[in-house]
Amino acid sequence: MKKIAVVMGSDSDLPVVRPCLEALRRFGVPAVCRVLSAHRTPDEAHKLSAEARSEGFGAIICFAGKAAHLAGVMAAGTTLPVIGVPVKSSTLDGLDALLATVQMPAGIPVATVAIDGAVNAALLAIQMLAIEDGALAQALADYKKEMTEKVLEKDRKLQLELK
Amino acid sequence: MKKIAVVMGSDSDLPVVRPCLEALRRFGVPAVCRVLSAHRTPDEAHKLSAEARSEGFGAIICFAGKAAHLAGVMAAGTTLPVIGVPVKSSTLDGLDALLATVQMPAGIPVATVAIDGAVNAALLAIQMLAIEDGALAQALADYKKEMTEKVLEKDRKLQLELK
Amino acid sequence: MKKIAVVMGSDSDLPVVRPCLEALRRFGVPAVCRVLSAHRTPDEAHKLSAEARSEGFGAIICFAGKAAHLAGVMAAGTTLPVIGVPVKSSTLDGLDALLATVQMPAGIPVATVAIDGAVNAALLAIQMLAIEDGALAQALADYKKEMTEKVLEKDRKLQLELK
Amino acid sequence: MKKIAVVMGSDSDLPVVRPCLEALRRFGVPAVCRVLSAHRTPDEAHKLSAEARSEGFGAIICFAGKAAHLAGVMAAGTTLPVIGVPVKSSTLDGLDALLATVQMPAGIPVATVAIDGAVNAALLAIQMLAIEDGALAQALADYKKEMTEKVLEKDRKLQLELK
Amino acid sequence: MKKIAVVMGSDSDLPVVRPCLEALRRFGVPAVCRVLSAHRTPDEAHKLSAEARSEGFGAIICFAGKAAHLAGVMAAGTTLPVIGVPVKSSTLDGLDALLATVQMPAGIPVATVAIDGAVNAALLAIQMLAIEDGALAQALADYKKEMTEKVLEKDRKLQLELK
Amino acid sequence: MKKIAVVMGSDSDLPVVRPCLEALRRFGVPAVCRVLSAHRTPDEAHKLSAEARSEGFGAIICFAGKAAHLAGVMAAGTTLPVIGVPVKSSTLDGLDALLATVQMPAGIPVATVAIDGAVNAALLAIQMLAIEDGALAQALADYKKEMTEKVLEKDRKLQLELK
Amino acid sequence: MKKIAVVMGSDSDLPVVRPCLEALRRFGVPAVCRVLSAHRTPDEAHKLSAEARSEGFGAIICFAGKAAHLAGVMAAGTTLPVIGVPVKSSTLDGLDALLATVQMPAGIPVATVAIDGAVNAALLAIQMLAIEDGALAQALADYKKEMTEKVLEKDRKLQLELK
Amino acid sequence: MKKIAVVMGSDSDLPVVRPCLEALRRFGVPAVCRVLSAHRTPDEAHKLSAEARSEGFGAIICFAGKAAHLAGVMAAGTTLPVIGVPVKSSTLDGLDALLATVQMPAGIPVATVAIDGAVNAALLAIQMLAIEDGALAQALADYKKEMTEKVLEKDRKLQLELK
Repeated sequence: MKKIAVVMGSDSDLPVVRPCLEALRRFGVPAVCRVLSAHRTPDEAHKLSAEARSEGFGAIICFAGKAAHLAGVMAAGTTLPVIGVPVKSSTLDGLDALLATVQMPAGIPVATVAIDGAVNAALLAIQMLAIEDGALAQALADYKKEMTEKVLEKDRKLQLELK
Repeated sequence: MKKIAVVMGSDSDLPVVRPCLEALRRFGVPAVCRVLSAHRTPDEAHKLSAEARSEGFGAIICFAGKAAHLAGVMAAGTTLPVIGVPVKSSTLDGLDALLATVQMPAGIPVATVAIDGAVNAALLAIQMLAIEDGALAQALADYKKEMTEKVLEKDRKLQLELK
Repeated sequence: MKKIAVVMGSDSDLPVVRPCLEALRRFGVPAVCRVLSAHRTPDEAHKLSAEARSEGFGAIICFAGKAAHLAGVMAAGTTLPVIGVPVKSSTLDGLDALLATVQMPAGIPVATVAIDGAVNAALLAIQMLAIEDGALAQALADYKKEMTEKVLEKDRKLQLELK
Repeated sequence: MKKIAVVMGSDSDLPVVRPCLEALRRFGVPAVCRVLSAHRTPDEAHKLSAEARSEGFGAIICFAGKAAHLAGVMAAGTTLPVIGVPVKSSTLDGLDALLATVQMPAGIPVATVAIDGAVNAALLAIQMLAIEDGALAQALADYKKEMTEKVLEKDRKLQLELK
Repeated sequence: MKKIAVVMGSDSDLPVVRPCLEALRRFGVPAVCRVLSAHRTPDEAHKLSAEARSEGFGAIICFAGKAAHLAGVMAAGTTLPVIGVPVKSSTLDGLDALLATVQMPAGIPVATVAIDGAVNAALLAIQMLAIEDGALAQALADYKKEMTEKVLEKDRKLQLELK
Repeated sequence: MKKIAVVMGSDSDLPVVRPCLEALRRFGVPAVCRVLSAHRTPDEAHKLSAEARSEGFGAIICFAGKAAHLAGVMAAGTTLPVIGVPVKSSTLDGLDALLATVQMPAGIPVATVAIDGAVNAALLAIQMLAIEDGALAQALADYKKEMTEKVLEKDRKLQLELK
Repeated sequence: MKKIAVVMGSDSDLPVVRPCLEALRRFGVPAVCRVLSAHRTPDEAHKLSAEARSEGFGAIICFAGKAAHLAGVMAAGTTLPVIGVPVKSSTLDGLDALLATVQMPAGIPVATVAIDGAVNAALLAIQMLAIEDGALAQALADYKKEMTEKVLEKDRKLQLELK
Repeated sequence: MKKIAVVMGSDSDLPVVRPCLEALRRFGVPAVCRVLSAHRTPDEAHKLSAEARSEGFGAIICFAGKAAHLAGVMAAGTTLPVIGVPVKSSTLDGLDALLATVQMPAGIPVATVAIDGAVNAALLAIQMLAIEDGALAQALADYKKEMTEKVLEKDRKLQLELK
């Protein structure tokens, strides 16, 4: 199975990143987690994106806040899909990171998920791998069913509580 | 090769959608284009998303404006990756569609691209198919090189003009 | 009397929902409270909206945050009025939920109230039932008078305090 | 059948209001259309809202732009449901009118629809009247079916065009 | 000397209002403080604004949050200057109150100060009274000088601290 | 009668300013109109604000766009009330000018009106002068009545048209 | 004298860039103008920033729209000051480019000017060169005086016109 | 070496300012730190900017919140580069200060950094001084390398932790 590269712009983002790593692990998708900055370690960032396909990666997930350039810079260096997670920082509630991640110019897409949307970034990467992988697709279908069950269970519990 | 479903919430979105269809055609990726609304044709929308995988689709691209629910509603019904393109409408400059598309709750990701980002939606879908398809990956690499060449050509032309 | 369906997208919204249930109870309006998600339990959500009228409901109140699709998805399946309450979540201060709820395309209205506006959602539903129900209209008029009295009482108290 | 009061803050809003009047007429719902301002004709505005119920109105629809107070001021004077349509003006793209209409304090709800959402305001008023009116509910259900048909027709046409 | 009416839409605004009352007191400007709501006590609000001039008021200061209509509704009923203070509430950081206060239509101005700008509302009212009142103008000039002195004192202290 | 100083940051603002001058003229309030910039002619701007009171001015109205500092800079130099009109420019729809005008720090108020709110700036200045001027107050009351009449006239006309 | 590098992300930005080139020429500051993209020509962009100092540049001005990464990517590769000009594009009025340019993480500053602020970008670059260049500083002082004169001339003209 | 003037609009900004002073000290760049307000001490502010060049300053860094006029007012009085740091205050998350700082009219640039971006303000000032100062440029290059090293070190540590 292809691996997923999970890259964060700063190690202070780790608490936001963790649910992404856990979701990948739950689905048995191998992941490599890196701290790399578009601005502070541009060479290492470029190396990762340039070699990602040949190194066996299937997608790259990037977490960054503020003027979040990491996903865009990664996307510039690879033909693999790059998923961008805008991280909320101390000002502007993540709107800056969202716009800096999603508003990419034609030619270089970044698949953007919600602000701090770590789980969805993982699921999106898994969905990409599952396009051609029936077992993974089945695992996603099971996960969906489980989510449904959980909501219905909560619904039943609430009915009882409110009676 | 897997097909791409391109769905727009209203046929008035067609001018925004066209560059997406052209980009898919350029890469030889088969596409089906539909007008389906999350709110006006919910049954047909669910049918498409529920059967998309078994019908041979690899990803679904959704265009919608205002309270853009189409991509999210599609994503609810499939384990395929769903790409959302927020469409600018007559008020709020597309911000409403962007937030309604990207801010999905955990469990149901939508891979969001820029407002009116039709070409990038196509490229993202192609990147997903190219994870396991070397020829398509090579075509993307060639496209990237061509983009680079075009910018450099413009750069050279500008140097001459400004002399 | 018609019943009101109160639906929340996640059981974590319950603290925001409670004042809505209390307001309905205060006016003696029967309510059913459900946890249903536009994305995680689309079938159950559709079932509720499709059968709401025949089940004796007069209106549906939906609470949802982020890319809040619940009210719109409900409105797609019924001819009953649907009231949407945008719920504030951890980013963007509820603006995403507000726009995703209120900016509905022509044909499928959602009656949107303020962010976290649980009491007003209940009052709006009661006003709808009271169009043809004189006793309920009188109860609303009494409630209005009571509100006025409370403000005037506070006004008198403040005058004394500040003297 | 109850009448609907359609009130605009300025006669310059008439082009935005017209589709609302047409939608009401299409459903055979009697409407009275007024130009009344919360700030320039407060007495007439209060009179209308205070007497609306006894005059046979079932709901009041208010169109206003900028610091749109009209719907809120109307809602203060009646126990009928008040529907607010934020009107886009020359600056801020309707965001000011949206927030000034929807963010009502607890106790005085305004059922807010999309910016310039005239048709949905009419449909919402009709839905309210249709809670207890089976024929009107059937007309709404027919309208919904017609909308669905129109989208499916456009879908079929597009399939042919793109072949 | 003319009196200033200080009106708040809810007694929960009192902590925000207090610095306004203190500033008025400091300048010896008589003030009356009221809790009155544009929506819950419209009659009392209108009475105050309609009689304000004849009761000896020179200006009205209104504090309100969310869809802040209070200042506009007051301004509709008087030819006295009305000062609006947008109050920050639990969502949207006061932007809703700011737009609902400042974006008044032509004909009915509201003199808007910063979000939660209680002191400036008082100073603005005092400046209005001081147009024709030399002693009050002198008190304002003294206040300005004192502010300057305080900043310069802090500047000197900082120089010493940082040495 | 006190004069009103009307200052614009750039002569390109004149079309926005004109309705302000006309409103002042209509009420017979003497006005002086200047082009002065907080940044390009700081000395002249300071001179005007410093001498405004002794030169017989009662208030200063400032028009400025973008990072609109003019009103604040004027307010720093006088104890007269300063009215700020945020002017919409080619980007951001006037939101920048609104925030730069209204969000003044404690101690230096600017009475802010709507974006491009020229007429209201004039009326606000006139209201300030009318605090102690019965004839001017009467003229404002007449103007108010006339506005009411105009709306009612339009209301009657609309009733006839729609019949 | 050091040269200024003026880089635009797309040759479609040239109309926005031109006033910058003209301002540099007016002050006799040598400039090189390039079309280089952070995403489409990352290698050439890095080369320019890495070699800028040794090639005799004193500052780099970058124009980019949407998710404007160009200035940040340039700043990552040099110790020269980088000036970012956010360019307004077809959606969001330049707010996306502004936030993506200005909200840089600690360590990598971008000196951001107004949206489409081409002239100010040039002046800022010239101010930087003029820190140690008395003649250039004098030219800037002359320019300032000229601006002042122009405003005063317009002020005088307006006085005459309005008489 | 030229000195840097660091000016804050209020001494309450000192916690935000400190990292700027520390960064300047770390590079051995002499700095003077002042509390000066565009509105409360306009004369002292003008004096500082007017004399900054002749007093041996190379750049002025201004910290201000809300309607942040300080940097613009400073820039009006000098031909030195002025760096503006928008400071987040209790409402609007710094957006007001950002727009009031960055959206300067043509002719008077302010080099704006991120909201609360104290370190970057210092680095930008140092970069300006380093245009002609090889040793300082080397120190900046060393700082850059150190940043890179720190990120790489964190990256290595994270690899170990996650194993």
